[in-house]
Amino acid sequence: MTSSHTSNLDPAITARLKRTADGLVPAIAQQYDTGEVLMLGWMDDEALHRTLTTGRGTYWSRSRQEYWVKGDTSGHVQHVKSVALDCDADTLLIKVDQVGAACHTGDRTCFDADVLLTQD
Amino acid sequence: MTSSHTSNLDPAITARLKRTADGLVPAIAQQYDTGEVLMLGWMDDEALHRTLTTGRGTYWSRSRQEYWVKGDTSGHVQHVKSVALDCDADTLLIKVDQVGAACHTGDRTCFDADVLLTQD
Repeated sequence: MTSSHTSNLDPAITARLKRTADGLVPAIAQQYDTGEVLMLGWMDDEALHRTLTTGRGTYWSRSRQEYWVKGDTSGHVQHVKSVALDCDADTLLIKVDQVGAACHTGDRTCFDADVLLTQD
Repeated sequence: MTSSHTSNLDPAITARLKRTADGLVPAIAQQYDTGEVLMLGWMDDEALHRTLTTGRGTYWSRSRQEYWVKGDTSGHVQHVKSVALDCDADTLLIKVDQVGAACHTGDRTCFDADVLLTQD
């Protein structure tokens, strides 16, 4: 569970966010200039606060149960260009400048390797 | 809960999908040519099966607890161009040709109206 974490997020945003049962919001990371969808991560209020205030894509790792600054280990950092909330206030779109590969496999995006369908 | 629905999804995909506790996978809908991120919906196995086989973006509505073919009410249909699963098999990227507005508010995308941050 993540929602027990204290957050410094702007109360005006905190009041509007709609979270999953475990206190998270899905965050789509998109390369700001090419439009590539890079990955989907999860943010709790504090991860969103850190993303907004540090300019570095910061997520909550569901598997490791800890905050995760994208690129801290790999060097493949995300410089944040914009953050938008959707019409239902339950999804975030983070436009970033992604250094190197967004995917831990080394692929540019997490959606490159497993295409289920293509059609003209 | 949705995971109790019978699904006709290809068993090879069923075996790989990783779902939330309520049996769903987030699905990012992206305009195939411009790269705009249009919306995020949720799919259970059967919604993914219908999306793959009908060529129309089909989701599970968490609020209405029913399947939802995008555009059936509004006319703003999504013609599916490709479907990809991410590296963790827990997120879908659906590239579509979106007719008209993707957002129920009339905006082109669900992320147009509520920008929390922009920076150069």
